[in-house]
Amino acid sequence: MSEIFVGIDLGGTNIKIGCFDSDMKLISKTSVATKADMGAEVVVDRMAQAVEKLLADASVCLRDVRMAGIGTPGPAKYKEGIIIDAANLPKFKNVPIRRMLSEQLGKPVVFENDANTACWGEYTVGAGKGVEDMVFFTLGTGIGGGIVSNGELLHGSDDNAAELGHTIIYPDGRLCGCGQKGCVEAYASASSTAARATEAVRSGTASSLKKLLDEDGQISCKDVYEHLAAGDELARQITDGTAKALAIICVNMLHITEPKRIVFSGGMIASGELLLSRIKDYFNEYIWSLKTETVEICFATLGEDSGIIGAAALALHAHRT
Amino acid sequence: MSEIFVGIDLGGTNIKIGCFDSDMKLISKTSVATKADMGAEVVVDRMAQAVEKLLADASVCLRDVRMAGIGTPGPAKYKEGIIIDAANLPKFKNVPIRRMLSEQLGKPVVFENDANTACWGEYTVGAGKGVEDMVFFTLGTGIGGGIVSNGELLHGSDDNAAELGHTIIYPDGRLCGCGQKGCVEAYASASSTAARATEAVRSGTASSLKKLLDEDGQISCKDVYEHLAAGDELARQITDGTAKALAIICVNMLHITEPKRIVFSGGMIASGELLLSRIKDYFNEYIWSLKTETVEICFATLGEDSGIIGAAALALHAHRT
Repeated sequence: MSEIFVGIDLGGTNIKIGCFDSDMKLISKTSVATKADMGAEVVVDRMAQAVEKLLADASVCLRDVRMAGIGTPGPAKYKEGIIIDAANLPKFKNVPIRRMLSEQLGKPVVFENDANTACWGEYTVGAGKGVEDMVFFTLGTGIGGGIVSNGELLHGSDDNAAELGHTIIYPDGRLCGCGQKGCVEAYASASSTAARATEAVRSGTASSLKKLLDEDGQISCKDVYEHLAAGDELARQITDGTAKALAIICVNMLHITEPKRIVFSGGMIASGELLLSRIKDYFNEYIWSLKTETVEICFATLGEDSGIIGAAALALHAHRT
Repeated sequence: MSEIFVGIDLGGTNIKIGCFDSDMKLISKTSVATKADMGAEVVVDRMAQAVEKLLADASVCLRDVRMAGIGTPGPAKYKEGIIIDAANLPKFKNVPIRRMLSEQLGKPVVFENDANTACWGEYTVGAGKGVEDMVFFTLGTGIGGGIVSNGELLHGSDDNAAELGHTIIYPDGRLCGCGQKGCVEAYASASSTAARATEAVRSGTASSLKKLLDEDGQISCKDVYEHLAAGDELARQITDGTAKALAIICVNMLHITEPKRIVFSGGMIASGELLLSRIKDYFNEYIWSLKTETVEICFATLGEDSGIIGAAALALHAHRT
C-alpha cells in the first residue's frame, strides 16, 4: 500500500495542487483558478473537488492519502489554522481553512505560510537537501524568509518568525513599506532594486536605462539585470547594492542561526551568476576573520513547484512525527 | 527520594559550583580557584573534589545526584564535549572535559557554552520564566548571546549560533575585534562604549569625562554611566549610541526568531533604567508599524549565579528529555 501526500499552494489567482508519494516524487499536479471573490466556502469546495479529480485522473485511491498540506500568504494564525486577512484573498476574513479543508477531504491537514512552505520544499528535496540548518529567502516584490534549525521550521512565539526582509541593515536608511527605515527589503527586493535604478537615472546618472525610463516611464528589476548583462555601469552599481544588502543579511544569519546553507529563491534569481557571484563576493568581504566559514550560498532549484512540494513535504513530516 | 542536579561554571579564575533540587532551588554553592595553569587533569580533579565536598557539607547523597551540567567559554565542540582552545584556560587544548568530569563524578554530564548556560538559567527561573521564545544578551567586554526557540536552545549547525554581538548593524562602520566592521559589539559592549567616549573626549567634545581621562589616562564604561547619572551631555550621547545599537538588534531579532522576551545581562546592566529606558525608546522608534509588538525588553535577574543555575537547569532538562 502506497502512502500519498497532497500539497496545495493557495494563491490569489490560482490554486496549485500536487500529489506525491512518500519519497516526494510527483505523481501528478494541476492548477485551477482560485475565484477568491466567491468567498471561502466556494474556494474550499473547488479545492477539494480539484484534489479529488487530480487523484482520480492519476488513479490514486483517496484512502491512500495520509495527509494534505496547504500554504497561503499571511497574515494568518497558522497554529490555529485560520486565515485572518490575507491581502490577495480579500473575502477571506477569519476563515478556519484547515478545519474546512480537512472536513471536505476527510484527511488531516497541515497549514503553513507560503514562504515557510517553499522553504520546507527546498529543504527536503531542493537546494537545502542534506543539511539540518538552512536559511531561505524569497526575492520578489518583497522579501520573505524561512529558517530551518536542527531539522525543523522555526516559527517564533506567534508564527511570525523569519521576516528576514524586515531586518534593518542601514539604520535611518531607505523607507520600507513596513514603516521601518533601512530594511533589507528596502534595498534588495525586486521593487527596491527597480526603484533605486529609477532614482539614480532621474538624478542624472548616465545609463542605458535612461532611454527605457524616457520611453516606458518605468524601469523594472528585470530591466536592471538585462542592462547589467549588456554592460551598463549604473546597472552594475545597483546590482552591487542589492548583492551587498543580501550579503550582510547572510553574515547576520550565519551568526544568528548558523545555517549550513543559505538559499535564495523567487523571480530575481533569474539574474543568475551575475547576482549570485556578487553576493558571495560581498559575503567573503564582510564576514569575520575569526574562523573560516563553510556556509554555502546558492539559488533554489524547485522553481514554481516549491509551494506544492513543500506543502506535501510538511504533510509527510507531520504524518511521521 | 530527592533528585539533585549540580551546576558548574568553569571560568579562568574561579570554578563556581551549586547543587539544586529539581525545582532549581539552590541547596548550597561554593567557589574554588581554577588554577588553570596546572592543566586540565588537575582542574577536573579539583572540580570533582569540590563537588563532593559541597554535597557532603550540605548532607546530600551523591547517589541522589542525577546529572551535572558545566558551562565554559568557547570555542569548544559542545556536542562532542571537548574544549578546543579556550582563551582564559590556556593549557586546555582539545580537552574532553565532559567525559573526564563524568568519569570523576560517576554521573552523566551536559556541556554548554557560558552564554547559552546563563541564557538557560534566565529562561528557566529568571527573567525569561513563563515564555517559550527568548533572546538573551550578555553585555560585557564583548557581547554574547543565547536564543531559546520553542523551549529549546538554538545551537546552529556547528554549535556557533547566537553570536549576536557580531551581527552587522552599520555596514563599513567601526572595526570590531572579530575583523568585521559595524558589529553590534563594536558599538554597544562595555569596551566599545568606553572607547567611543574616549575618542569623543580626545577629539575635543566637552565633557566632565575629560578630567578623568587627563588624570587616569582612561575612561571606563562604568565612568560613562556615572557621568550620565550626573548629567553629562557627552555621556548621554554615548549611552544613546549604545542603546540605539541594542534596540536595532532587538528589532532584528524580533523579526528573525520572534521572541516574547529579550533579556540583557552582564556588568553593563548595573546602569539600570538610564540604559534600559533608552533601549525601549529606540526600539519603539525603529520597529515597524505593520502590527503592534508585545515583546518585553528587560534585564536579567539572576546575577552572577546564572551560570551555575543554568548549568544545573540544563542537566535537569537533559535528564527529563
